[in-house]
Amino acid sequence: MHVFTYACLVSTQAQVLYDFAAEPGNNELSIREGETITITNQNIGGGWIEAKNSKGEVGLVPEDYIEVSNVGLFVSTSNGNDPWTVFDNNASGGFSNNWAAQPEGTETGKTSSNAWHSGGHGHPQAYQGPGAEDDEWDEEWDDVKSSGGYAESEAGEGGAINRGGAHGSSMKIALNNGEVGPVWAYPDYQLDCVVADPKKGSKLYGLKSYIEYQVTPTTTNKPVNHRYKHFDWLYERLLEKFGSAIPIPCLPDKQVAGRFEDEFIKMRMERLQGWMTRMCRHPVISSSEVFQLFLSYKDEKDWKMGKRKAEKDETVGVMVFSTIEPEGLPDLDLIEVEQKCEQFNRFTRAMDDGVKDLLTIGNEHWKRCTGPLPKEYQRIGKAFQNLSSVFTSSGYEGEAALTDALTAAGKTYEEIAQMVAEQPKKDLHFLMETNNEYKGLLGCFPDTVGVHKAAIEKVKEADKLVAAGKITPSDKTTMSKRASTMSYSLQAEMNHFHSNRIYDYNRVMQQYLEQQVKFYEMIAEKLRHAHSRFTTM
Amino acid sequence: MHVFTYACLVSTQAQVLYDFAAEPGNNELSIREGETITITNQNIGGGWIEAKNSKGEVGLVPEDYIEVSNVGLFVSTSNGNDPWTVFDNNASGGFSNNWAAQPEGTETGKTSSNAWHSGGHGHPQAYQGPGAEDDEWDEEWDDVKSSGGYAESEAGEGGAINRGGAHGSSMKIALNNGEVGPVWAYPDYQLDCVVADPKKGSKLYGLKSYIEYQVTPTTTNKPVNHRYKHFDWLYERLLEKFGSAIPIPCLPDKQVAGRFEDEFIKMRMERLQGWMTRMCRHPVISSSEVFQLFLSYKDEKDWKMGKRKAEKDETVGVMVFSTIEPEGLPDLDLIEVEQKCEQFNRFTRAMDDGVKDLLTIGNEHWKRCTGPLPKEYQRIGKAFQNLSSVFTSSGYEGEAALTDALTAAGKTYEEIAQMVAEQPKKDLHFLMETNNEYKGLLGCFPDTVGVHKAAIEKVKEADKLVAAGKITPSDKTTMSKRASTMSYSLQAEMNHFHSNRIYDYNRVMQQYLEQQVKFYEMIAEKLRHAHSRFTTM
Repeated sequence: MHVFTYACLVSTQAQVLYDFAAEPGNNELSIREGETITITNQNIGGGWIEAKNSKGEVGLVPEDYIEVSNVGLFVSTSNGNDPWTVFDNNASGGFSNNWAAQPEGTETGKTSSNAWHSGGHGHPQAYQGPGAEDDEWDEEWDDVKSSGGYAESEAGEGGAINRGGAHGSSMKIALNNGEVGPVWAYPDYQLDCVVADPKKGSKLYGLKSYIEYQVTPTTTNKPVNHRYKHFDWLYERLLEKFGSAIPIPCLPDKQVAGRFEDEFIKMRMERLQGWMTRMCRHPVISSSEVFQLFLSYKDEKDWKMGKRKAEKDETVGVMVFSTIEPEGLPDLDLIEVEQKCEQFNRFTRAMDDGVKDLLTIGNEHWKRCTGPLPKEYQRIGKAFQNLSSVFTSSGYEGEAALTDALTAAGKTYEEIAQMVAEQPKKDLHFLMETNNEYKGLLGCFPDTVGVHKAAIEKVKEADKLVAAGKITPSDKTTMSKRASTMSYSLQAEMNHFHSNRIYDYNRVMQQYLEQQVKFYEMIAEKLRHAHSRFTTM
Repeated sequence: MHVFTYACLVSTQAQVLYDFAAEPGNNELSIREGETITITNQNIGGGWIEAKNSKGEVGLVPEDYIEVSNVGLFVSTSNGNDPWTVFDNNASGGFSNNWAAQPEGTETGKTSSNAWHSGGHGHPQAYQGPGAEDDEWDEEWDDVKSSGGYAESEAGEGGAINRGGAHGSSMKIALNNGEVGPVWAYPDYQLDCVVADPKKGSKLYGLKSYIEYQVTPTTTNKPVNHRYKHFDWLYERLLEKFGSAIPIPCLPDKQVAGRFEDEFIKMRMERLQGWMTRMCRHPVISSSEVFQLFLSYKDEKDWKMGKRKAEKDETVGVMVFSTIEPEGLPDLDLIEVEQKCEQFNRFTRAMDDGVKDLLTIGNEHWKRCTGPLPKEYQRIGKAFQNLSSVFTSSGYEGEAALTDALTAAGKTYEEIAQMVAEQPKKDLHFLMETNNEYKGLLGCFPDTVGVHKAAIEKVKEADKLVAAGKITPSDKTTMSKRASTMSYSLQAEMNHFHSNRIYDYNRVMQQYLEQQVKFYEMIAEKLRHAHSRFTTM
């Protein structure tokens, strides 16, 4: 089994995100926010790296307090004439934007282009928060509640540095060549979390209300609190950072009206749970620094600092591919890359159609099951009971056995009516939710595939560019290599998707059919009982 | 237990219907059609009575060959000034017509007034056959097929005289006072018959086609053949004769278009069976001469003679009450009679509403079960199968288990669709048929009740009539007595109706629920199997 890893390439420069005061006698280096330092050894481990400041002082600094300057990093690999930057002539600027340019005929995702736009190099811009777009979300970002969710020790400065193993801009992501082809390396322990206990909170002396959910990761078992907008912030970060390589499904819809109603809160919580579970299951996402921050920030300060750092992350958009080096795996030729890409495109589109079809049918079935069908059973039930009461009025002796049985049968059909009406919540609901999730996920694939198609086109043009002297033959080779890397990463992602899909559909079909069986068995049982009351001696 | 009987009152005169040649040495008397004879002893038994002809010769004659002159009989009970005939001033004439006059607000039955009109006294008119009203039914009446249905010995003249025990105009019908009140006397052996084996016949060298059903009574186990128009003839006879006292349900609808289609023939046969079973179950009807004739005529001649005799029967309309004498039972006072009548009226109307309601709902349910519902299950099945075939195209290994299971689940829902569509024929059908039968039966009650209400009104007017010297006080007493007799007969009929209703509804609900249970169990079983194919290790 070949292993190749995301790796920092020849990077040396890094930006300091937060002040850090060295503890004397520990080989640490004090750094100040905004300072540029040079990384001298990043294989220290435990969340530390060795760096040198502009004064030439060398010491250990917390990995999470600095950010590797990705652009510099990327450019530095090709002596200032990186083939990717060659195409940085796009009017809207930004090389990752150029990468993300949608090939014609590809659906344009609303959020994804955003992600690639915002990952501008050299001028990282802090994320404005969703409040910038939505009046409902314009609260201050500093309102993290201190109720619960914190580690017992307010670890202070040191709090943010203990997410060792999680990978930020400079983390390693293993990508194995499994039985089915390239696969992400899965952790031994499958991360998961529980979203529960929604509580209404308020601030500004009760002028603003919000719902806070308790999120408890299975690793620490320590709950943290998050509002919907925090989830949304996480989503934006993940989309920005991983969107080119990994389809990041949208969060459940924002909703303003009725968002404090119990039914809505329950539904949103369920969907946030589904989304979080899916993110937890993804080895690249679940081990990312920003995700780990979200799940297990130590205290308010830790959260705030982590947030600022994540917002300054520049390894976003297509840059995510820059850290992948398919060690020991042969480069794929362009035809193979193209074929794989086309295959995935075809599959995800076909599945998208299939899923939408199922959703349409499911919706209609839901309507029937909660509308006309139970009404009909109810009417049948009422008709039997009505006949029973007519019979009771006959004045004929020996009527009671029949009328009792008829009334019971009528009530049974009324019960069945209720069962029919409630059944969709018990079975169809999960089938619909799962397919809705997949619809969302599949909706991200055109963008992901689009990134790959664009890369393929670039490589196709490479010959002309070499001829025009715009890039060197060596640049062309690098481009092919990178397209190959992207293809391996897409394959790993597709394999991840497939294995999850197989698991999810097996599970949801089991759940659906199990509930259906119970439903029909219960009806049969009720009717059997109703039947036993009639007698023809 | 009091027993009172239908009985010939003081009748002595009888009309000879058919020629009968006495066999020498057997005490028999030769008679000729049209001759008037005097009955000297009607308690001979075995289908024989003793009579005297105009020449004074006395001997035995077959009971079925003569008809007691009912009108003379009825009038003779009240010395030429019968209170019933007093009101015979109705423009359309006919005293039974006067009886049948509908009270205001009562639904007018299409067929029943007909029945009471046609029973004119003194001028019996041979039944014209339904062909008179319907071109499709204008075939000769002499077309009884000789295929099967005959007793092994062509008994000739003697054939018609062996329906001993069956009662024609002068038969006795026992009416008991049972636990629930007045009840008809039920025979020890419950008559039944099987309507089966519909065969296409033709006549006029193939120019006319018809369907002939085989009717096999459980008594003789010898099949006879009848066409629909024979059933219709029987229906008309029963309606004419018993309609005032016993609601005679209509036959299944006549239908011209499509009457040779298998589906229609099967349905008509099933309904004729239902109708015959109901008639067989009625002790008065099943033991009547005309019904016995229909079920077990010996040969063509027997059938023809029986038919002619039945058509000449004058104990029709309200005359049927003339032979009831409630022995040992106290006369009911008018208030009690009226109350009973009102009670039955209320009940049958309420039940009529209930039954019609159930039929409406059943019809809608039928439509849903055979229309949109199976289509929806089919679409669900197709959606699963479609998703399965998309999954198959993934190229991912280890897909087969899921896709096989999904395909199987999809097929299961297609099977369920088919089951749903076919289910109404297995359960709802019988529920609908039974309720349809009852709807028909209940539709006859307003007429039956109307006869009683009219009688009650007459009795109420009796005081005035006595004062006006139009009837004697003794006539008034007779009228009250007769109203009481009618009420007992109605009560017996209602009790018959109730006990049959209780049996029928128990049976049909059992049948319905049993099939429903099977249906839901089979669905559950199919889904359980489909469920078992999914796996989430």
